[in-house]
Amino acid sequence: MKKLINRPEDVVKESLAGLAAAHADLLRVHFDPAYVVRADAPVTGKVGVVSGGGSGHEPLHGGYVGRGMLDAACPGEVFTSPTPDQMEAASRAVDGGAGVLHIVKNYTGDVMNFEMAAELCQADGLAVESVMVNDDVAVEDSLYTAGRRGVGTTVLVEKICGAAAEKGMDLASLAALGKRVAANGRSMGMALTSCTVPAAGKPTFDIGEDEMEIGIGIHGEPGRERKPLATAREIASMMMDAIVPDLPFRRGDAVIAMVNGMGGTPLMELYLVYHELERICRDSGITIARRLVGDYITSLEMAGCSITLLRADDEMLALWDAPVMTPGLRWGC
Amino acid sequence: MKKLINRPEDVVKESLAGLAAAHADLLRVHFDPAYVVRADAPVTGKVGVVSGGGSGHEPLHGGYVGRGMLDAACPGEVFTSPTPDQMEAASRAVDGGAGVLHIVKNYTGDVMNFEMAAELCQADGLAVESVMVNDDVAVEDSLYTAGRRGVGTTVLVEKICGAAAEKGMDLASLAALGKRVAANGRSMGMALTSCTVPAAGKPTFDIGEDEMEIGIGIHGEPGRERKPLATAREIASMMMDAIVPDLPFRRGDAVIAMVNGMGGTPLMELYLVYHELERICRDSGITIARRLVGDYITSLEMAGCSITLLRADDEMLALWDAPVMTPGLRWGC
Repeated sequence: MKKLINRPEDVVKESLAGLAAAHADLLRVHFDPAYVVRADAPVTGKVGVVSGGGSGHEPLHGGYVGRGMLDAACPGEVFTSPTPDQMEAASRAVDGGAGVLHIVKNYTGDVMNFEMAAELCQADGLAVESVMVNDDVAVEDSLYTAGRRGVGTTVLVEKICGAAAEKGMDLASLAALGKRVAANGRSMGMALTSCTVPAAGKPTFDIGEDEMEIGIGIHGEPGRERKPLATAREIASMMMDAIVPDLPFRRGDAVIAMVNGMGGTPLMELYLVYHELERICRDSGITIARRLVGDYITSLEMAGCSITLLRADDEMLALWDAPVMTPGLRWGC
Repeated sequence: MKKLINRPEDVVKESLAGLAAAHADLLRVHFDPAYVVRADAPVTGKVGVVSGGGSGHEPLHGGYVGRGMLDAACPGEVFTSPTPDQMEAASRAVDGGAGVLHIVKNYTGDVMNFEMAAELCQADGLAVESVMVNDDVAVEDSLYTAGRRGVGTTVLVEKICGAAAEKGMDLASLAALGKRVAANGRSMGMALTSCTVPAAGKPTFDIGEDEMEIGIGIHGEPGRERKPLATAREIASMMMDAIVPDLPFRRGDAVIAMVNGMGGTPLMELYLVYHELERICRDSGITIARRLVGDYITSLEMAGCSITLLRADDEMLALWDAPVMTPGLRWGC
């Protein structure tokens, strides 16, 4: 295992300490229980927006804490759900009197623990609503999931709901907005290589030198099929052939598009894939109104990429454009 | 070779097309000869700031084109110098009447070609000054270099000179500033894995499963020594033991620090290395006044990192904080 780490058991804690040291202007890290929180939390009168999940997907979620996006994020161990006490503590820390929104990727542990945390908060009079993201079109049910996995659309839900909360949207409206965004987003991923969880010390799966996995999950869960390595053009088409008919996206739709790197893919390859995506969308009459190209929801050092499309209405686009000031996304500030 | 590409010979062109499509608000790409240029170039009365070099180091340099940083960037083929005609065309395209500054990493081909381009421009009455960056403390002379290689400090020179040009600094002052920044920056890199140039189709070098290369160049050039894999703490110390005495950085200095990923390293590991860097600086009485943690000057999918320190005076810090609006760096806009 080749990693820039000290002891595997300290990876998450030491990485969080680095995040805190690097971005003291934006966020703080609380340990025991561990959560990342906006430097100015709680913001009085604002709904607190909280997400979280296993570590190893950076910048998701801790890198999206800051003005205009998340108020707090709960990092679990690598590829492991955070615990209810982390989520409860984070929710209380961002309670500005207007309730808390939980944004939850659909993995069994995350869903169960966020539910338990919500109940603990609610029992104490803190209003909590939840939005579940389950946008991965690759497979129904998977290694850690009943139903579809939550992947790339999570980034877009966090940005859009974070912007709406910043503008003062109330909890019920925010939950409805988040559900609308989640319902209109679709994603699919693929991998050229595996990744290695530090505590495991060996690759999560084996893959041949001339193979790729189409429909891979962000923890290396099996996808749709193992195939011979293809060109970027063919790969982009395969992913779009699964994504577009699923919603379905139609001629005339405006979308926010994301070409996301899994962690070990050079940026020049992601731009090359975006070039293919742009051509496919143009040919399909789909307008890419906004886009992200880069590493936004990763799987450690896995090589590969995912594509996310969100059918966006004018409200979503305006919230997308609103200022955001986090380590991972930053504009308009 | 596992890459998200079509034909190896089209990688740079197609990636540039994707960059242009993704950031049409910030930049344009000109082909034949290839250069990336600010969308609003030339800016009348402003010195044009131009850099360039081989591709494969993204976001350097094309990703730093935009307001407050570069006016143009010339991308060569992967790990190959751009040609004088690219540099000349880019210089003319950003000529706003106040001359052009070339920022050149010290590689023999880059230096020679930028010199030739400068002569061609000057012969035609366009004033050109050059700043050379040669900040890599690892080795004197290397595979493609007489003297020290130009690496991480290049990003800082581009940001600081870009900000100064935006504020209206004249060409002579800008060249002096760039030389001062270059003279005060020091870097060193290390690699856990090699990278594969698309046209070569196989890894640039071999490295054992339990080895690392300390002092590696950004094209996989040999460094100082091949050693058994060490912890992040030991690696950060080794690099700082080479960087700090070289300038030397002293107790009381304020620095801009960069922990840079080589392309295949997860962000969580870079934050972990930053945590170590921060501790070393604190123990040495060096104040990290500003910092970058992420992929800023990469080597395709190489796993590894580099550390850059720049001893920064108040003028440099103020220019660092000035607004920048590029695909790769963005704040204050």
